[in-house]
Amino acid sequence: MAQHAKVPANNTPYADLPPISTTLFQAKASKGCTFDEIAKAIGRDEVWVAAAFYGQAKLSTEELQLLSGFLGINHADLRSELGEHWWPNRGLGPIPPTDPVIYRLYESVLVYGHAIKAIIHEKFGDGIMSMIDCKVNIERKPDPKGDRVLLTFDGKFLPYAKW
Amino acid sequence: MAQHAKVPANNTPYADLPPISTTLFQAKASKGCTFDEIAKAIGRDEVWVAAAFYGQAKLSTEELQLLSGFLGINHADLRSELGEHWWPNRGLGPIPPTDPVIYRLYESVLVYGHAIKAIIHEKFGDGIMSMIDCKVNIERKPDPKGDRVLLTFDGKFLPYAKW
Amino acid sequence: MAQHAKVPANNTPYADLPPISTTLFQAKASKGCTFDEIAKAIGRDEVWVAAAFYGQAKLSTEELQLLSGFLGINHADLRSELGEHWWPNRGLGPIPPTDPVIYRLYESVLVYGHAIKAIIHEKFGDGIMSMIDCKVNIERKPDPKGDRVLLTFDGKFLPYAKW
Amino acid sequence: MAQHAKVPANNTPYADLPPISTTLFQAKASKGCTFDEIAKAIGRDEVWVAAAFYGQAKLSTEELQLLSGFLGINHADLRSELGEHWWPNRGLGPIPPTDPVIYRLYESVLVYGHAIKAIIHEKFGDGIMSMIDCKVNIERKPDPKGDRVLLTFDGKFLPYAKW
Amino acid sequence: MAQHAKVPANNTPYADLPPISTTLFQAKASKGCTFDEIAKAIGRDEVWVAAAFYGQAKLSTEELQLLSGFLGINHADLRSELGEHWWPNRGLGPIPPTDPVIYRLYESVLVYGHAIKAIIHEKFGDGIMSMIDCKVNIERKPDPKGDRVLLTFDGKFLPYAKW
Amino acid sequence: MAQHAKVPANNTPYADLPPISTTLFQAKASKGCTFDEIAKAIGRDEVWVAAAFYGQAKLSTEELQLLSGFLGINHADLRSELGEHWWPNRGLGPIPPTDPVIYRLYESVLVYGHAIKAIIHEKFGDGIMSMIDCKVNIERKPDPKGDRVLLTFDGKFLPYAKW
Amino acid sequence: MAQHAKVPANNTPYADLPPISTTLFQAKASKGCTFDEIAKAIGRDEVWVAAAFYGQAKLSTEELQLLSGFLGINHADLRSELGEHWWPNRGLGPIPPTDPVIYRLYESVLVYGHAIKAIIHEKFGDGIMSMIDCKVNIERKPDPKGDRVLLTFDGKFLPYAKW
Amino acid sequence: MAQHAKVPANNTPYADLPPISTTLFQAKASKGCTFDEIAKAIGRDEVWVAAAFYGQAKLSTEELQLLSGFLGINHADLRSELGEHWWPNRGLGPIPPTDPVIYRLYESVLVYGHAIKAIIHEKFGDGIMSMIDCKVNIERKPDPKGDRVLLTFDGKFLPYAKW
Amino acid sequence: MAQHAKVPANNTPYADLPPISTTLFQAKASKGCTFDEIAKAIGRDEVWVAAAFYGQAKLSTEELQLLSGFLGINHADLRSELGEHWWPNRGLGPIPPTDPVIYRLYESVLVYGHAIKAIIHEKFGDGIMSMIDCKVNIERKPDPKGDRVLLTFDGKFLPYAKW
Amino acid sequence: MAQHAKVPANNTPYADLPPISTTLFQAKASKGCTFDEIAKAIGRDEVWVAAAFYGQAKLSTEELQLLSGFLGINHADLRSELGEHWWPNRGLGPIPPTDPVIYRLYESVLVYGHAIKAIIHEKFGDGIMSMIDCKVNIERKPDPKGDRVLLTFDGKFLPYAKW
Repeated sequence: MAQHAKVPANNTPYADLPPISTTLFQAKASKGCTFDEIAKAIGRDEVWVAAAFYGQAKLSTEELQLLSGFLGINHADLRSELGEHWWPNRGLGPIPPTDPVIYRLYESVLVYGHAIKAIIHEKFGDGIMSMIDCKVNIERKPDPKGDRVLLTFDGKFLPYAKW
Repeated sequence: MAQHAKVPANNTPYADLPPISTTLFQAKASKGCTFDEIAKAIGRDEVWVAAAFYGQAKLSTEELQLLSGFLGINHADLRSELGEHWWPNRGLGPIPPTDPVIYRLYESVLVYGHAIKAIIHEKFGDGIMSMIDCKVNIERKPDPKGDRVLLTFDGKFLPYAKW
Repeated sequence: MAQHAKVPANNTPYADLPPISTTLFQAKASKGCTFDEIAKAIGRDEVWVAAAFYGQAKLSTEELQLLSGFLGINHADLRSELGEHWWPNRGLGPIPPTDPVIYRLYESVLVYGHAIKAIIHEKFGDGIMSMIDCKVNIERKPDPKGDRVLLTFDGKFLPYAKW
Repeated sequence: MAQHAKVPANNTPYADLPPISTTLFQAKASKGCTFDEIAKAIGRDEVWVAAAFYGQAKLSTEELQLLSGFLGINHADLRSELGEHWWPNRGLGPIPPTDPVIYRLYESVLVYGHAIKAIIHEKFGDGIMSMIDCKVNIERKPDPKGDRVLLTFDGKFLPYAKW
Repeated sequence: MAQHAKVPANNTPYADLPPISTTLFQAKASKGCTFDEIAKAIGRDEVWVAAAFYGQAKLSTEELQLLSGFLGINHADLRSELGEHWWPNRGLGPIPPTDPVIYRLYESVLVYGHAIKAIIHEKFGDGIMSMIDCKVNIERKPDPKGDRVLLTFDGKFLPYAKW
Repeated sequence: MAQHAKVPANNTPYADLPPISTTLFQAKASKGCTFDEIAKAIGRDEVWVAAAFYGQAKLSTEELQLLSGFLGINHADLRSELGEHWWPNRGLGPIPPTDPVIYRLYESVLVYGHAIKAIIHEKFGDGIMSMIDCKVNIERKPDPKGDRVLLTFDGKFLPYAKW
Repeated sequence: MAQHAKVPANNTPYADLPPISTTLFQAKASKGCTFDEIAKAIGRDEVWVAAAFYGQAKLSTEELQLLSGFLGINHADLRSELGEHWWPNRGLGPIPPTDPVIYRLYESVLVYGHAIKAIIHEKFGDGIMSMIDCKVNIERKPDPKGDRVLLTFDGKFLPYAKW
Repeated sequence: MAQHAKVPANNTPYADLPPISTTLFQAKASKGCTFDEIAKAIGRDEVWVAAAFYGQAKLSTEELQLLSGFLGINHADLRSELGEHWWPNRGLGPIPPTDPVIYRLYESVLVYGHAIKAIIHEKFGDGIMSMIDCKVNIERKPDPKGDRVLLTFDGKFLPYAKW
Repeated sequence: MAQHAKVPANNTPYADLPPISTTLFQAKASKGCTFDEIAKAIGRDEVWVAAAFYGQAKLSTEELQLLSGFLGINHADLRSELGEHWWPNRGLGPIPPTDPVIYRLYESVLVYGHAIKAIIHEKFGDGIMSMIDCKVNIERKPDPKGDRVLLTFDGKFLPYAKW
Repeated sequence: MAQHAKVPANNTPYADLPPISTTLFQAKASKGCTFDEIAKAIGRDEVWVAAAFYGQAKLSTEELQLLSGFLGINHADLRSELGEHWWPNRGLGPIPPTDPVIYRLYESVLVYGHAIKAIIHEKFGDGIMSMIDCKVNIERKPDPKGDRVLLTFDGKFLPYAKW
């Protein structure tokens, strides 16, 4: 349901983002649509679109065009701020994270990081799971004891170069 | 293939673990078995077993018994160190992580943390994905352009209490 | 007693909060009411209401309506800033805290954290006290030697998943 | 049930404690008793006793005597290490805490710290809840939806001196 | 001698204080009076008054009235910013301090902290010197080899609760 | 009253000190004397002596001799470790301090640091209170509402050089 | 292709740079030229020019003149901000870097730093590779398996002075 | 020239490495050979071999065999410590680096990091230079004004996944 | 040569200084004079004057008068901002410094700090070189192999008080 | 005057140094000689020799020989630990320094760092004072008001490369 919406441009995390991010979030909230609806409109996944709104991914010229149409934001404005000359400055928020949602992800590194490393080495050898060639997906899995979040990282294995 | 193996007990991350962890890793290496084989022997998943080896999960009395049998470690020794009186002291390794495998997980928090938070709120409302009631899974997904790591977190959604 | 009141919007902790937080604090101060009075007006506890004022909890549409009426803040303004599109960005203030009131809570973690962990494990097994499904309460307990603060955390025990 | 038990003396948090702490924890585990049973034997609360085991509280000469008898530890040994010349060196573990049980307490400071401060000021004026004249209590509260941890801090209010 | 004075409101430490602090410091400088003269006018000590100017202590309604009169600041303004709804947010400046005056105090903690702790325990037992019920005093002590600063902390001893 | 005493040489803060510090603390505890008694025996103040025990001050050859006699420690041993070739390595303990006694001193810097700086400048001009030419004193001041710690720093004022 | 372009002047890293940096980046984007084209216009390398845009290198009077002409920026403006009185304030961005491109450079220090040091010592003796008299070059090296970045540091070896 | 050599096993950086690293460095020093000579013996580059000595790369079974022969280290010992069960724990040394050789590399990130990122984006698009599929090379370039270090990173460009 | 000059008031280090600092730097640049010329005009050394411009030293009333005349800045403005009520807030810039010029000074502490301490103790006994009663001087020393910076600290030795 | 001397090998800063450093310091103390006497014996300056003792400079084969003779340390031992295979691992002690002698040097960076940078740029242009080609000297300058430490850095100016 459409409504007037404001996003606190001088607060975390918006203050650390290009001003156009605030515009995007306000347009989305005013239109009352979900990231999934935006994602379908521009042909991408919802997590990737949310990342792009937070300045963590780069929209192509075509995606900017589609986004402009879907959210009713002036295309020239969008392009002058997020056009070809703009590159994401990735990495957002305090470390360690203070928000409990994000902290839990961080806690997974603290608690399961070494186990994940051990299994990756055992299954793939000496190398890493790429966070560049990696797709992130979130699904809601119904469960009578309380629905569950299914968070998936699908990343290419990269073996270490030897020379 | 079985062989003699040593684990550097005074080095990262072993130096931060109970001495029995070193024994477990050495027994596993000497036997030449995988975490998956151990997991099957004690009825658990390989990631969970690796976490337990790193002192990040608690083995039950029965699991200690099975582990003792499978790896050929004296059961009384295992129980005197990891028995009922022992509780995991979770959280391992430097922050930010310096090892690239573990750093990439951490980078996912920096780059996709806010996007994941936004989607969880959109799909579930105000709450978090539990990292306590959460199962972690790693699968090797064949891909002609290079095999991929499929890392899944299956965590219960916990809505915020209001009072 | 009602009076004109200002809150230093560009200072700690207000500068780290959405601007509407400042409006809420100023309205409360100008009306001269307590958090308990606001809490009764919207059907919540005073600690929870204070948390919401600090942007650490999410008011429902109904609560925003009631709050708007009680404090005399334009409802549309409130909704455009704290409406359905807004989600708390939790975690406020420097760490370690510099304010002595908040530092003492932090000191309880430093001094009694391990003891609390040990007793929780002894009484409940391997798991944690949830800070998500947790209610916080403060009571003034009269005492001839000096009144006492009774601070209670009532949190659900969450056992660790094994898989 | 009594059994042989070892505590990893060169690991967190034992490595940061006087060696006698390890002895105490091993004696407790070998005897198979709870902190509550020890507390009853020396006339104290279980949380306080656990704190003392972690070197965060000072046992009196009488308490050392009773502890020595109950756990079967040589009294002279106990006194030579924890006698009148020994004073607690309080503050234990990494900050921020990495163990999820202790982290949740810390998260309560991040999320509810300012709210607690606001309510304390509103109910008591300018001052703090003492963490020195403070009693900590943990109770298991049965709940059909999952038992709950009732953690209580009962601390004296200390008004700020003006001069 | 009175003169026009400006205080750099967007600089350390003023930028971390309520804007009214800047007003107070400018009024004081323009009037050309000392903290001691202000202290006498409102019935307090100079160190306490300086702390209040830095937002580290709470002036009562009467003190605000007297201060308003003495410095010629509009009383309603003062009250709307520092009135009953305002509470000090204590803890000011970077840690470790970079200013040599403040650093020397900090150095006293590094160099004499353990010695002070040892003597307090020896003279008073297990407890602390309160920094809440504590009065701070500075005196100029003439000395032919160079005058000396006599800095005194007069704090209540608080014994640790046992329960 | 004399007794056998041990000091945890591999624990904070002893592990950060020369091994002779442990010997000194054990000798003092075994003899059952106070720092004041030692101070009188070697002609110094108790706080200074405690600082010397913690490796934060340098004992002269004569003081080593007197100390050796008073505590019954072999003089050659004392001199081989703390003799003319030894210089204090000042600065002890974690920052921020975790022990509440030492933290309160640190809190005085956070809360009153700027006020103290302001008064020093007002009374002395541009310069500092020396922490090198500074004497620290602790006195127990009886008070019916609870005895008080009188902690005094008597430091030379040093004006800033201009050139 | 020329177009209107905006650079988020109040965001990372622009907010940490002189305002003229934003002007330079906007002029470059509006003109739609590359760093290499600018470099050729002023007689420098593209990496050095990019560094200068980020305020990390000093343009000479002649280079400012050429830059002004090429980008169509008023020469007096450029000179009043980056003229002879301006000196680079080098060192930009958070540490550790959060952006993955920059982090990978940092990771090279973590993983190969000691190896590089060992080889430099072996080939040159005791000294360093200068980062002051150092030229940085980036080349695109075509590769059927994926093009490669050839990043070269050409720095003078500086032997340690002995005296 | 061969000689007896010791490496300070309990010092930086050796104390952070598996004990076998010390053995390798001592054998190399005793034999008096260079990394390049070892590299030639096992068919690798000198920088990679140095990284392997510092525990930052994984030697294959064949390389361990060749290394064992070349340095005269018992093969079974080498294999029991660095065999198939061993995986590098990458990331070595303090951050920021304190050693000037390593610090200069780090300074290159601070000073040229943003410029390098800008050029990579301009030449390759949105992505990174891999530090996993990356070869590091060091060459001594004679120069009459002082020989130069030619340090090259040859890393695969990895474009960001979009999904 | 005089010209119009701007100093980036909202950038490092100017943003951390009183606004009058920006005015001073702009006046100096517009006049095209050196610190040495200003120093001669007000009877001080160039390093001290530069420190004063950065808000790290206090100009006397007379010096403000002379500075006002020499740089053509309104005297009342200068006095209202840097007059008797203003005191330096010393300590400027990030730690560790990121600018290579300042970092090299910092590196001298890392590399030669302990050596300097050892020699000071050997030549003077237990005490320090004052940084308060200290004069800093910079001279250009011609050298055919490249001119050299002669940086001198001339600080009073302060022996430790004993009491 | 010669005597038996011990250096606390497991304490700061010796614990961070090769064990041979302890041997050197003990030999020097037992012989009762100064750094200047050692320096004269091996043909170097006292500050450089002290740096070498702290593992911050590399002694040549000839210097090791002379040192061995002068201090009566077995030459083979010295060479096996500090021979050609050993390279200094520079950078010693905590940051910020806690020892007041070393902290004062660090304070000079905080207070005079920007001034020194400004003067270096003014006198030399864009570049740095080398800390590699730099000689450090300490002189005792008699002064009736208290002797002074004359600390000199004589470092080559290095202009920034442009390319």
